Amino acid sequence: MRLGSGQRASARERLATHMRRLRADAGLSQEMLAELSGLHRTYIGSVERCERNVSVDNIERIAMALQVDVSDLLAPTY
Amino acid sequence: MRLGSGQRASARERLATHMRRLRADAGLSQEMLAELSGLHRTYIGSVERCERNVSVDNIERIAMALQVDVSDLLAPTY
Repeated sequence: MRLGSGQRASARERLATHMRRLRADAGLSQEMLAELSGLHRTYIGSVERCERNVSVDNIERIAMALQVDVSDLLAPTY
Repeated sequence: MRLGSGQRASARERLATHMRRLRADAGLSQEMLAELSGLHRTYIGSVERCERNVSVDNIERIAMALQVDVSDLLAPTY
């Protein structure tokens, strides 16, 4: 993350934070989330490291796999 | 949109719906939103027609230009 004080998380960082938390809460590995979303395991890993400029269609696939609303994945993080 | 009864709007459709409404509310043309977001006018038009698999970085630029939170652009539409 490496956020300075007062700096807001970018959309990529929000997505990564929510994914890691929701995936952990659901007891899913990156492999399992990849399987559920139809994406590749290494892709899931790179999204969780903020390395990917993910498309809206893939954000939607990840949200469906995590059983949350797509907007929840971009909600503010505190 | 072409949504059947009971069918939820896709993330692309949500984004397009929110963009058109927020842009109209702000009295902005597609050209003006393009200028504010640093994207091309024809790109803005294609996003509003659900033709583009927009990236999270560009969703963020559009949100900043429209002065809304990025998650608002993917919120459920009713």
